[in-house]
Amino acid sequence: MASVNPPRGMRDFLPADKARRERVLAVIRERYRAHGFDEIETPVVEDYDRLHAGIGGDNEKLAFNVLKRGLDAEAIRAAADDPAALSDLGLRYDLTVPLARFYATNRAQLPTVFRSIQMAPVWRAERPQKGRYRQFVQCDIDIIGDATGRAEAELLAASLDTLDALGLEGGSIRINDRRALDWMLEHFGFTPDERPGVLITIDKLDKLGDQGVVAELRERGASASAVDAFEAFLRRPQTLEFRPYGAGQIRKALPEGVPDEIVADLVAIGEAVGAARASTSPSPGGSTGGGAAGGVPLHFDPFLVRGMGYYTGTIFELAHPSVDYSLGGGGRYDGMIGRFLGQDVPAVGFSIGFERIVDLLEAGADAAASAVVLVHDRDVPVAELVALKAALIAEGSRVRLEQRTKNLKALLERAAADGYTAFATVSAGATRGDLELKPLS
Amino acid sequence: MASVNPPRGMRDFLPADKARRERVLAVIRERYRAHGFDEIETPVVEDYDRLHAGIGGDNEKLAFNVLKRGLDAEAIRAAADDPAALSDLGLRYDLTVPLARFYATNRAQLPTVFRSIQMAPVWRAERPQKGRYRQFVQCDIDIIGDATGRAEAELLAASLDTLDALGLEGGSIRINDRRALDWMLEHFGFTPDERPGVLITIDKLDKLGDQGVVAELRERGASASAVDAFEAFLRRPQTLEFRPYGAGQIRKALPEGVPDEIVADLVAIGEAVGAARASTSPSPGGSTGGGAAGGVPLHFDPFLVRGMGYYTGTIFELAHPSVDYSLGGGGRYDGMIGRFLGQDVPAVGFSIGFERIVDLLEAGADAAASAVVLVHDRDVPVAELVALKAALIAEGSRVRLEQRTKNLKALLERAAADGYTAFATVSAGATRGDLELKPLS
Repeated sequence: MASVNPPRGMRDFLPADKARRERVLAVIRERYRAHGFDEIETPVVEDYDRLHAGIGGDNEKLAFNVLKRGLDAEAIRAAADDPAALSDLGLRYDLTVPLARFYATNRAQLPTVFRSIQMAPVWRAERPQKGRYRQFVQCDIDIIGDATGRAEAELLAASLDTLDALGLEGGSIRINDRRALDWMLEHFGFTPDERPGVLITIDKLDKLGDQGVVAELRERGASASAVDAFEAFLRRPQTLEFRPYGAGQIRKALPEGVPDEIVADLVAIGEAVGAARASTSPSPGGSTGGGAAGGVPLHFDPFLVRGMGYYTGTIFELAHPSVDYSLGGGGRYDGMIGRFLGQDVPAVGFSIGFERIVDLLEAGADAAASAVVLVHDRDVPVAELVALKAALIAEGSRVRLEQRTKNLKALLERAAADGYTAFATVSAGATRGDLELKPLS
Repeated sequence: MASVNPPRGMRDFLPADKARRERVLAVIRERYRAHGFDEIETPVVEDYDRLHAGIGGDNEKLAFNVLKRGLDAEAIRAAADDPAALSDLGLRYDLTVPLARFYATNRAQLPTVFRSIQMAPVWRAERPQKGRYRQFVQCDIDIIGDATGRAEAELLAASLDTLDALGLEGGSIRINDRRALDWMLEHFGFTPDERPGVLITIDKLDKLGDQGVVAELRERGASASAVDAFEAFLRRPQTLEFRPYGAGQIRKALPEGVPDEIVADLVAIGEAVGAARASTSPSPGGSTGGGAAGGVPLHFDPFLVRGMGYYTGTIFELAHPSVDYSLGGGGRYDGMIGRFLGQDVPAVGFSIGFERIVDLLEAGADAAASAVVLVHDRDVPVAELVALKAALIAEGSRVRLEQRTKNLKALLERAAADGYTAFATVSAGATRGDLELKPLS
């Protein structure tokens, strides 16, 4: 057979990679569980109609769809002009659509305020490229049923704690509020119709810079006077000092007149996360710093947009000093979870960037205190070998059998690379007392 | 929207179920790792052609196939008489086909004897029925590259140890060898052509009984003299005592003249597993018993067949006194792993029955030593609440916030059902020292 590669854009995980991924998942699971979140799981496929109901945004076009079983020639011909008729299921492209469906299905059995963890693969038929895969793992936490900023505070405190536990101390949060963005665009004079497009352009500020964004807004044909007002605002004299986080900083970053309520909500979330972090850390102001003075590891960013159309309130991203991209993000989306129920249900979610974090962390040594290779002669009876192996396992070691080869050095180097820490040679008749464990360097 | 159920034949896992499943997976992972196995992961989809190459047996027909992206009307019409042309990928229906592909892809990076763990979902479009689902988890371990009975001994010792660790002590192994079956059928006089069909019928012995099997063989039109010989063998006088496991018992269970090599291999495996079990258990002959005298938890069953056509040597199933169905099974399949490499590679595998084991285990209490519900008044500032929560988490507790409701009793009962062990009420201004933790019964 010709090619033996995994399917295009997808990956095999060898033992070292798989072990690292499972370690990261275990830390995330343990920390979020400590913060009162509960893990759930849904099937990897959802009904085709649900995946293509408009909630998934651009991802809907990237879905892998599953062929209906038992289609006959006539049914296939009839579907020529309606390919959707060929599928009844699709692989999920995110964990939010399945969560909304799960909540509608199981609501009666869930607590009033439901804090969920989902850690699972999703699939998108994107053009494969470096660092972008067609199957990848998402780790989402969501709080459903709490309309207050308490939910944001719990979500963000838990996520910073999790990042700490992964060895990535010093994380911080960029935060904004869609209501602030909406108010600002209205304030400049953009019409309701043009605001979604304007947001898409503003989202490119990091990439295009102020002038690039203004130019693109003009090209788009956005209201000229609104673009002028926006440009003037961008050019206003301002201090570069955005700290400490608080009402003063937020007001200074926005045009004058922003509604008090929006500012107060953002301030309360920051204070709460700061208080949680101070309570968590043994040395207040120490590892929680992350460049955030005053113990509040938040930065207000008036131009943080985030792509999905379903956000209705706060939006945020997780930053870390070691990288210039975000390690996760999320926001409040009060209109969406209830869609399959026919009523609004408040919800706020955060997706920690599992794949990015795995790439950041070193392969690292294994947790096993002791991992022993038993290098045995060919003639050692199987019963003696597996009994010795079992005895060492019972003592708490991880144990691998290796039949001695001519190149013992290569064999031991290989075992060390695989995480083994010691070895012993075994001849016929050896008992546990005869084994001399030597460290593998 | 009308239905909000998960796709047909598939399940959501709520927090208690998901936690139990993850606990079982963690135990299996930890025990098999201790025994020197390494976990790997492959994509959930494989190329269509690979999934339909004849390795998967009847499961190939049950595959969920993935629709090609970007099919136009012409391509769909052209596929009317060749539905396979609509798919380029499919969801895996087992973990063996992906393992064979993985080994071919990554062989250069794997140890000479590769001991793999795979714990992952598979999909089969079977008619849904009680206890049978279209997505379910398989846990496979395989040893690739070892043609000796050492591999069987490691596999079976590790699996019995894992069953112990799951709280299911007393497991035992039913074992047979395809070579013994082949020899026996030849001995009775069945022709090579009819033997596969004869095996399918013999596999129904438990269900049909001796006379039913003989009748079905006659109906099938199997060689009359061979069926007569088989019937005479079934009716031979025999003791019901199949213990202790050893050469005598194996020979007694088969027609006279079985080749020595087959018997010796089976005996050596049994002795090795017995020795490993004696080494593992603090009290030899104690928990390793499982109804197996002499410390060898194996039973030879001359009519154990197992369905898959690819087995070439030993075959085995995991039995437990608490149930009358098997908790896993496997065997040696030396011809298959190398299929994508164009050469034979020895391999033996075991699939522990994850879904059955999960169903057997009680929901059970959570591992968390302490899980606390903070029941707070509505007016407690968010910063105070999340700071108290963070302080308890830092002390090692799992913590959930709950806003006080009129029916406090119902709230606490719900929390207890969710695994919480204590609660405290929180009023505005409370500090950690003010919290009085009370046990939840």
